[in-house]
This record gives sequence, C-alpha cells and structure tokens, in this order.
Amino acid sequence: MSTPQVGIIMGSQSDLPVMSEAAEILEELGVTVEVTVVSAHRTPHRMVEYAEKAAGRSLKVIIAGAGGAAHLPGMVASLTTLPVIGVPVKSRNSIDGWDSVLSILQMPGGIPVATVALDGAKNAGILAAQMIGAFDDKIAKNVADYKESLKEKVLDSAKSLEEGGWKAKKIGF
Amino acid sequence: MSTPQVGIIMGSQSDLPVMSEAAEILEELGVTVEVTVVSAHRTPHRMVEYAEKAAGRSLKVIIAGAGGAAHLPGMVASLTTLPVIGVPVKSRNSIDGWDSVLSILQMPGGIPVATVALDGAKNAGILAAQMIGAFDDKIAKNVADYKESLKEKVLDSAKSLEEGGWKAKKIGF
Amino acid sequence: MSTPQVGIIMGSQSDLPVMSEAAEILEELGVTVEVTVVSAHRTPHRMVEYAEKAAGRSLKVIIAGAGGAAHLPGMVASLTTLPVIGVPVKSRNSIDGWDSVLSILQMPGGIPVATVALDGAKNAGILAAQMIGAFDDKIAKNVADYKESLKEKVLDSAKSLEEGGWKAKKIGF
Amino acid sequence: MSTPQVGIIMGSQSDLPVMSEAAEILEELGVTVEVTVVSAHRTPHRMVEYAEKAAGRSLKVIIAGAGGAAHLPGMVASLTTLPVIGVPVKSRNSIDGWDSVLSILQMPGGIPVATVALDGAKNAGILAAQMIGAFDDKIAKNVADYKESLKEKVLDSAKSLEEGGWKAKKIGF
Amino acid sequence: MSTPQVGIIMGSQSDLPVMSEAAEILEELGVTVEVTVVSAHRTPHRMVEYAEKAAGRSLKVIIAGAGGAAHLPGMVASLTTLPVIGVPVKSRNSIDGWDSVLSILQMPGGIPVATVALDGAKNAGILAAQMIGAFDDKIAKNVADYKESLKEKVLDSAKSLEEGGWKAKKIGF
Amino acid sequence: MSTPQVGIIMGSQSDLPVMSEAAEILEELGVTVEVTVVSAHRTPHRMVEYAEKAAGRSLKVIIAGAGGAAHLPGMVASLTTLPVIGVPVKSRNSIDGWDSVLSILQMPGGIPVATVALDGAKNAGILAAQMIGAFDDKIAKNVADYKESLKEKVLDSAKSLEEGGWKAKKIGF
Amino acid sequence: MSTPQVGIIMGSQSDLPVMSEAAEILEELGVTVEVTVVSAHRTPHRMVEYAEKAAGRSLKVIIAGAGGAAHLPGMVASLTTLPVIGVPVKSRNSIDGWDSVLSILQMPGGIPVATVALDGAKNAGILAAQMIGAFDDKIAKNVADYKESLKEKVLDSAKSLEEGGWKAKKIGF
Amino acid sequence: MSTPQVGIIMGSQSDLPVMSEAAEILEELGVTVEVTVVSAHRTPHRMVEYAEKAAGRSLKVIIAGAGGAAHLPGMVASLTTLPVIGVPVKSRNSIDGWDSVLSILQMPGGIPVATVALDGAKNAGILAAQMIGAFDDKIAKNVADYKESLKEKVLDSAKSLEEGGWKAKKIGF
Repeated sequence: MSTPQVGIIMGSQSDLPVMSEAAEILEELGVTVEVTVVSAHRTPHRMVEYAEKAAGRSLKVIIAGAGGAAHLPGMVASLTTLPVIGVPVKSRNSIDGWDSVLSILQMPGGIPVATVALDGAKNAGILAAQMIGAFDDKIAKNVADYKESLKEKVLDSAKSLEEGGWKAKKIGF
Repeated sequence: MSTPQVGIIMGSQSDLPVMSEAAEILEELGVTVEVTVVSAHRTPHRMVEYAEKAAGRSLKVIIAGAGGAAHLPGMVASLTTLPVIGVPVKSRNSIDGWDSVLSILQMPGGIPVATVALDGAKNAGILAAQMIGAFDDKIAKNVADYKESLKEKVLDSAKSLEEGGWKAKKIGF
Repeated sequence: MSTPQVGIIMGSQSDLPVMSEAAEILEELGVTVEVTVVSAHRTPHRMVEYAEKAAGRSLKVIIAGAGGAAHLPGMVASLTTLPVIGVPVKSRNSIDGWDSVLSILQMPGGIPVATVALDGAKNAGILAAQMIGAFDDKIAKNVADYKESLKEKVLDSAKSLEEGGWKAKKIGF
Repeated sequence: MSTPQVGIIMGSQSDLPVMSEAAEILEELGVTVEVTVVSAHRTPHRMVEYAEKAAGRSLKVIIAGAGGAAHLPGMVASLTTLPVIGVPVKSRNSIDGWDSVLSILQMPGGIPVATVALDGAKNAGILAAQMIGAFDDKIAKNVADYKESLKEKVLDSAKSLEEGGWKAKKIGF
Repeated sequence: MSTPQVGIIMGSQSDLPVMSEAAEILEELGVTVEVTVVSAHRTPHRMVEYAEKAAGRSLKVIIAGAGGAAHLPGMVASLTTLPVIGVPVKSRNSIDGWDSVLSILQMPGGIPVATVALDGAKNAGILAAQMIGAFDDKIAKNVADYKESLKEKVLDSAKSLEEGGWKAKKIGF
Repeated sequence: MSTPQVGIIMGSQSDLPVMSEAAEILEELGVTVEVTVVSAHRTPHRMVEYAEKAAGRSLKVIIAGAGGAAHLPGMVASLTTLPVIGVPVKSRNSIDGWDSVLSILQMPGGIPVATVALDGAKNAGILAAQMIGAFDDKIAKNVADYKESLKEKVLDSAKSLEEGGWKAKKIGF
Repeated sequence: MSTPQVGIIMGSQSDLPVMSEAAEILEELGVTVEVTVVSAHRTPHRMVEYAEKAAGRSLKVIIAGAGGAAHLPGMVASLTTLPVIGVPVKSRNSIDGWDSVLSILQMPGGIPVATVALDGAKNAGILAAQMIGAFDDKIAKNVADYKESLKEKVLDSAKSLEEGGWKAKKIGF
Repeated sequence: MSTPQVGIIMGSQSDLPVMSEAAEILEELGVTVEVTVVSAHRTPHRMVEYAEKAAGRSLKVIIAGAGGAAHLPGMVASLTTLPVIGVPVKSRNSIDGWDSVLSILQMPGGIPVATVALDGAKNAGILAAQMIGAFDDKIAKNVADYKESLKEKVLDSAKSLEEGGWKAKKIGF
C-alpha cells in the first residue's frame, strides 16, 4: 500500500458519514489517503502528536472536520506547516452550522485554515487534490477530467430538459 | 505574595484592556490572581503545559479570553479538571463578535466552558469569585457586599432621577 | 439521603428531557442533586425564595435551564452569591435557539451567568462538578476519570476505524 | 401634579437618553408620566414591589427599557396585569442589539411584552398613548393630531423636493 | 351578539391555525372578538377601510398577524389611532421567521406596532386583554385569575417532580 | 412556436421543482418562455455564451435561479444589458438560505440583479411579466387580472370566515 | 420637459442622499425621472394614489427606497402592475440593515419586488434602465456603453497596478 | 525577475489595502507573486482568460479577494485546476461581511474555494506558502521560522506581562 498523501481526521466517528466523502473523491482522483479519529478536546495529546508528525510522514495536506465549537482544524494548523483544510460539520445541537463555520473560518493572523462549505467534505477532497495537482501533472489531469465530467452532466441535463420540455421533466420529480 | 487562586490568560496582549477587568474585580473581591499571555495557536505547547499544571499549582479557576476563532478556553478546558471561564473578546476583523461567542460557547459534550458575555471579563472575575465563595465564606461575603453596592448605586440614581426629574437629568448628559 | 450540592431548576417541566442530562451526569460523578420546576415568569415569588435560600441550604451551584426569552438563570443569579450555570433550551417557537442563548449569555456587568451550549445540560452538570471538584479531590478524581473514559472511547473508535478501514465503517452506518 | 398614567422605568440611568423620548412624547400627547430607575438584576426586590403596586397606583401602562440580556420588561410583565411595553436598548457590548430584542420579544406563553423597535422609546410612548386613547377620546384626538402633523411634514418635504428639484435638495445635505 | 372589542385580522387564511389562539384566549378572558382575513398586499383597499373604520366601530385593539415581508400590522397602524398588536407568523419560505419579526418590529418613529413573539398569537390575545383590563376591572380580574392558573400548573408540576423524582418523570416522556 | 420572451435558467436540474413555478405563471400570464440548465461553475463558457447572445435572440428578461454561493444570476448580469431576475434557491447544505440570498442580492455597483424572495420563482415570473407589461398592454392586462383573482380569493376566504366563524374554519384544518 | 419614465420615491427626505444616486445614473443613461417623498406609514393615502396612477401617467418603472420595517416598496407593488424596484436603506436604528432587506425582499406570492443591495440605489437606477432598454435600443446602447466604461476603468487600474507595482500603489493610499 | 508562483487578484483596486497583505507576507516567506485587478462582474472575459491561462503560466496557487456578492474566487475556481484561496473583503455597504463570507465559502460540490477569515489576506498568503511548502522544503522552512517568530513574540509579551505585572502593562495602553 502506498504512503498516504492526505490525512483525513475528524473529531468523532459520528462525523464519518460526512467526512468519508473526502476520502472517496480523493481515491477517485488518484490521491492516497488515511482516515482516522482525532479529537481536539478528548485526545489533545494525540492531536498534538498527529499534527507534529504529519509533515515528517510525507503527508502533503491534512483535512480536518469537526462540528460545534470546532477547534480541531485550527489547532492542527497551529502545530504543522502543512496546509490544513477545515470542514465545518453541522452537528446535533449546532446553531444552524454557524458555530462550526465561524470556529474554523475566523482564524487569527498567522495560522490559516482553508475552510470549505458546511458539510463540504467532498470539496475538501477536491481542494486537496488540486493542491497536490499543482505539483503533480497526473493528479492535475485527473482533476481536469473530473471537472469535465461535471460539465458533461450539466450539458446532458440541459439537453434533456430542452428536448423533453420542462413540464415533462417536472412530472419526473 | 500569596498563591494565586485564579489564573487569567489571554491569547494576545492586545486582549489586556478587556481582560484586566477580570483581574481588577477579583482583587477587589479579595481573590488572588495571576495574569499572563498563552496563545492556543502560537504557543500550543505552552498552553498544554499551563493547563495541565494548573490544578497542581492550586489554582481553583482559569479565566481564558480570546477573539475570532477562539480556541483557547475550550482547549484549556480539555486539559484540566478545573472549571474554565471563557471570555469572548470582540477582536479586530471579528464578525460582530459572533465568531468568538460561538467558538467558546458551543463546546461538545464532556468539555464545558463557562461562557460569559462578549467582552464580559468583569463578569468572568465575579463568576470566579462566586465559585470560590461557594466554599469560602469570606469571599462570598465580599461578593454579597459588592452586589449590595450595585444595588445602592441604582437606588441613588433612582432617587436622584425621581427628585430632580428626568428633564433635569437629561440636561446633564 | 444526603444534602443536595447542586440545585437543578427549569422554567417548565417540558424542559426535563434536556435538563435531566445534568442530573444524570452529576450523579454519575458523585455529586448530589435536587431537581424541580421554578418559573421566572409564572412563579416569580417562588423563584425569589428559591434563589435567596439556596446558599443557606448548602447548595454550592445552581443550574437553571430555560428557553425563548430565558430570564430564569439571570434572575436567579441576581438573587444569590452562588455561581449560576445557565442552559439555553431550544424551545418550540424559538428562533433557532438564538433567543435563549442571548437572553442567558449577555448578562450586564455585576451579575454573571456561566452559560453553556444550546441544550448543553450535560456540560452544565460536568461544569458544576468541576466547580465542586476544585475544592473536593474525590469529585475532581471522578471528573478526571470521566474525561479519561471519553479519551478511551475516541482511541477505540480511532483504532477500529484504522484497522477496519473507513469503507467498512461507513457500511456500518 | 396629576397622578401618572404611564410608568417609565429603565435598568440603568445610562438608558435615560433613549428612554426620555418616551416621556417627552407622552407629555406632548397629554399623558402624565413618572420616570425612574428599576433594575431587574441589581434591585430585584424593588422591581417586584414596583410591578406589583403599579395597578393599585392607577398606572395604566408600564414602559420598561433595558439592554443586553434584558429581563426587566418580561419580569415586570410577570408581576402585573397591566400591559407592559418593552424597549430594547442597544447597550455597550450588545451584539448589535439582537440580545435585547430577543430577550424582550420572545416571551413564553402567558406573559406578553409589547415590544417596539430597537431604541424605539418614542414609539413606546405613542403606543402607550394609543392604549389610553382607546378609552379616552381626548388622548385619541391628540394622537390623531400628532399623526396628522407627521403627514404634513412629509407633504411639505415632498412639495419642496418636487418644486426645488432633487439636485437642489441634495446640495442642502 | 355583543360588539367586538378586539379585531383579529390575518393576511391569509393559512395563518388561522396560529391566529385562532388569540381568539380563543380572548374569549376565555371575557373579551369579545371578530376574526377575518385582510391582506395588505392582495386587498389594500379593504385594509385601508378596515383600519380607518375600526375606532368608529368601537374596537379597542387590533391584532394583526402576517408572515414573510409582513406589512399588515404596520400599515394598519398607520391608518388608525388604536393600538395595533403584531404577530409575526413563521410562514412557508420564511427565513427562519426573521423576516416577519423584523418587518413588524422595526417600525419607524411615529407608527408603533406592539410586537409579540414569533407565532405568539396567544400572547397577543392576553396583551389585548391587559390593555382593556387597564380600564375594565372585570377583565383585569380575569387576567389575574388566568395568571394565577399558570402559577398553579407550575406548582403542581414542581410538586409532582419533587415527590416522584426526576427519574420517574423522565420515564413518563 | 413563438420566440421566447423570458429565458429561465438554473444552476442544476435539481432546482427545477422551484424554478418551474416561474415558467408556469409566465405561461399563465401569456408570456413565452424557454427553460434550461446553465451552471456558472460547471459550464462557465456555456454561461458566457448564453448571456451574451440573449439580447440578440430577442429575450427581454432572464430569470436565473441558484443555491448556496449562487453566482449564476450575477455573472449573467455582468454579460448582458437585459434585466436579470435572481431567485435564491434554498439548496441542500445551505445555511438557512442566507448564502444564496446574500450571494445574489449584494451585487456591486454597476451590475444589478433584481432579487426576489427565497425560493420565490413564482414572483420572479410575475416580475418578468410586469417588466414586459410596462410595454405591452395585453400582458399588463393579464397581470392586472391575475392580481384581481388574488384579491377575489382573499375576499372569498374572508367572507367564508366571517360567515362560518373562525371556530368552524379551524375545525377544517 | 419630457414625461418621466421612472418614478423614484422614498419614505423620508432623509433617504435622499442614498436615493439620489438612482436619479443621477438614470439621467446619465438617458432615462427621464421624477423624484418625490411618499411615506407608506405617514401618508398612506398619498401612497395609494401615487401607485394607482403611476401606470396611467406613463411611468414604466417605480423605484422605492425605505429603511427599517420598509413597507413602501411592497405596498406600492400591491397597487400597480408596473415593476417595482425596492432599495433597502440602512437607516438610523436599523439592525445592521437586515430589517429593511428582509422587509422588502421576502414578499409573498403574487406581489414581487425587485430588490437590490442595501443602499443600492445606483443599481436600482441601472436596473430600471435595463428594463426600459429591453424595449428601447437607445437606452440599451447607453447601458452597454456604461458597462464598457466600468470595464475600461478596471483595465486602467489593472494596467497601472501591473506597471507601477502593488507597493507603489499601496503608498498612494 | 523570477516567474510568479502565486497570482493575487482582486475585484477592485479599492481592495488593495487588504489584499497587499497577502503579497507582503508571501515575499517575506520567499514566494514570488504577481498582483493585479480582475473583476468578475466588470471584466468577465479578462477573468476567464486569467483563470484559464494560470496553470500554463506555472502559477501554483491563485488568491482572489472580493467583497459583497463576491463571485471572483468561485468563478476563477471554476476555470482552473489550481487551488484557489478566497479572501472575503468587508466592503462598503457590506452587511457586516456576511455577504462576502457566504458568497465565497458556500461553493457547490465540485468547485472548492479555500476560504480564509474576513479580510484575512495575510493568512491567505501564508496558506499559499504552506501549499507550496508541502513540495518545497525551503519554503516550508520559511513558514516554520515565521511560526517560530510568532511564538517568540507571544513568549516575550508573556514574560513582560508576568514580570512587569498587568497593572503596569495596562498603564501602557
């Protein structure tokens, strides 16, 4: 098995249904991943160790997802020179997701976190692939192909809508 | 000099104008304090050490203030069994204070932070004194006297307003 | 039956499903509790009496939960020198919980309420135990053990995720 | 001096610049007022006494203004059968006024507060006059005349704008 | 049939499930009501006529409920000297109720609307009764009795909770 | 088939259930439409082409709907001199619709988008008809008749409510 | 003087500094305007008359600006078949502009208002010109030229920045 | 002059005071940059060309800043496989920055933008350096040194605060 290029961590296993989307798209784009649970609040020492060893283990990017007062992405960012992508997860008892979004986005000067949309783990994966693709033509090609496939899907649905008519389509719902 | 009972920490010295209000009221209430800078994002190891040693150094309460994506109170809370009071500071570039409020308040199950109002360092100090006062009659007496003094001020201004009339008072502004 | 150390009150019995989490964790942590209904708006005199007698009855902490324009925690805090923990409850007709959060958090100078997360009664209980634990080594030990158990759970799920692979785990959902 | 029909109370004398607008418009509309300071959090017993005696003292309406976690209007409403008008005051450290608005507006079933706009003390006064005017033709006439005067001012500025042209007017700013 | 003292109007019949709570409590409190549909946007002339004739028809208070960009309460208030109570209704497609709350609450100087909580039609009814009760001892007595009944319910549930224990109660849910 | 006067585009076919309401009301009002999928982010070149050719193809108005970070309406507006109506769609993972509302509404100086309510595609259709109706008496007449029909429905439900009584109506729910 | 094609109205003359931007850009684009004050709340009858006569007076578009609980645009829209553009004005005491934005944007089905950005009167003017330009090639040409001039300004500043270097430019600030 | 590794673009030259912070820190970290103005709404074709040619010109990262309905970062992201960092700029007339934050953050699936804090251009620069540093040890070293310098500053201010005492420091403000 090849060395993982992207480390995907989450504060709780309950975040896996959201966070596994990052792993899926990364594998689809040809990027190797590792996936585990690291809690800023329940396993702070594990978090410190994970973050400090990441660069030495040849990881290129860390994706960290957490909900509520989400400290994992920012704390990991404080402990590594690797780029860290933060995924705000809309957890139970969240105040509409605002808490995790702001806890991850509004980092102080010096310690950036690359924040994606609420529950946007898929985009976190694509973003990690783009970071790697900037230095790896094969991955860049895979990203380009993926974007082309998105375009094709839109063109197909446009064609089907234009040909079948919006009323026909609507019945389909 | 007596051992500090309350540790007051802040993410940046720029938070001192807000956070010193906690130190002032605590001294007024007869509680000993220490005040320093501990940054979750810039000095994570210092933060771990400070939090883990706090109980052993006989501190009874930690007051932690931070702005933006404010991780200091929650991270310290994850590393100690002492109660941690969090003060959301309205920093420059804050989104109206919502970021620090939600980053401190919305802690996950297991790791509470006693959150006070935006820039509410004075109340953080009083709250710490109340926690100590629950086990120390002298401090409880000081808190009671302080609250009595607040009441007296209200009664004085009520009397002055009722006697002088609201028009007179308004001119005074 | 031992004297209760923590009084848990709520504005309405409909808050019990949320607020009982505070009682459960406190009993688990070895802290004695009492639980009752006290409404700021429907039984203001009962509230005054409850708050004013609390310290004399040897309570150490009061936990008060309420929803909407939640005045119970703040009013109780105005009538006692004990620390008061406020639990914002997301009630029916609440505007996404913002009303109870802000009504409890944004207390004026002099009258703090230790606010926890929306529906965060469990954390309110742990926070109360931490306040007591600062003066009671046995309770502090219980809190430490509880936090250790949270850590163990994370390590277990991390191990299972790393060994089984995230795809296997995902099927389990 | 005639018996006051409307009691205007505020949590702190610092609210007087806002709250005096209620007194001014009420006097202009021929309604007698009293103005004083009553703090829910600093003088809870004074608040209870004020609210419980209000109806017996022939007050017809109470106007209560407060900022932040604003409990005064709702607590007074819980202690009287008189209609209570709440004025959310945008205090220092307020989170953009949302805290006082929601603390006053979102009252639970059974205890209404007639809430007006942020810092809307003038409208609170007019509303009180309208409540009295529903049973007192002279006051109703005064309200009608006042509204007519507002209309006249709009018609005057419309005329001046139409005749002078918007460019001329704009220079006037 | 006696002359209605309170007119209850709503922008759409779909608001009736919410707004009928105002009618129910008013009848319970001995106040006579009329209930109809008046839309600011779909029947503006009907709205003008309703509002302008209300005082002459001996109505004492108007309760107006509407959702979204809710203009009915404010427009009616501009056309009468009677006090107008506004009920923000959380309609389909509402942005969490903020639209109707702010459209009703934030009226400009001169034209107040007595705003109650989101979907707070019951409180609108009680508030109207309180306005009338300020000039009618019988209605004031009914309001007092109603508030007493609320208190009794709280005391009952408190007693049952204290006697049965919170665990027993919780099983009941 | 007649030339379409209004082009209705959406970022994804998943927006069709919302956006088809624009097509339906426009056909009802006698305005010809075309409906297709154009994605700003997945088919940017198609978007540029669509927008730049629209005026030359005799379209009079473009209605564009999108969710989340909704760039379609604003980008199309930057590429045509036709008026563009933007429909904020509340998509999956939206933060309560605020994202699409603000992404469409807050356009910079020079490039307006006529924004309608969240999921307000029907109103977008009516607005387009009104723009055309300002220059086409027949369409203006259709809009007037449509508004008359809305009024009739309100009057019918008012009559039924007044005659049947609100209690009868309520049973009907 | 030629017949005005666009009527620009505002709730108060204090809105003129914002609203005159609409008049300025419309004159620049060759569209004739009239500007006056019409208050929904202070002159409701004037508003009804203005709106109902607008189409007969050959106006093609109405631009209405208002702040706070902004009812003018929506009420005018209910009384005409012309397209109405609403400008949310950030008035004194506004809650950050949210009140006027939501009061104008969230119109119910059947009565659209074309809402532009907060204080976006200039864009309201351009939008009105685009509506007219869809049926008047000369105006469309003027809009196209205006957009071209915006582009030229960007290209100029880009050129100057690229040639002079961002450091030089920064000194210029 | 060496080929730029990072392209920094902004919607308007008025964003330069914010965006130049990205250029400054990148130069400090040894990364080559280019800085120019590219407007999504005023120069859409320039934007398409810039984005599509970026990878071919050997840029590794694009930093795009914009305010209000900020479409530049997301549109550029749709036209390149390079990672795009978005900086929400708090522009004049912004609704407290929420508009630019949400317009940039909430991108749909497939087209991520790495969003940083409001006005967080400095962090955008550091993040870009980290992306490059993951593949370039020299840049990674520079980032590590920079973070070390941040730590030193915190330790210095902590030392000075602890030695001088918080009262002395406070006088210094």
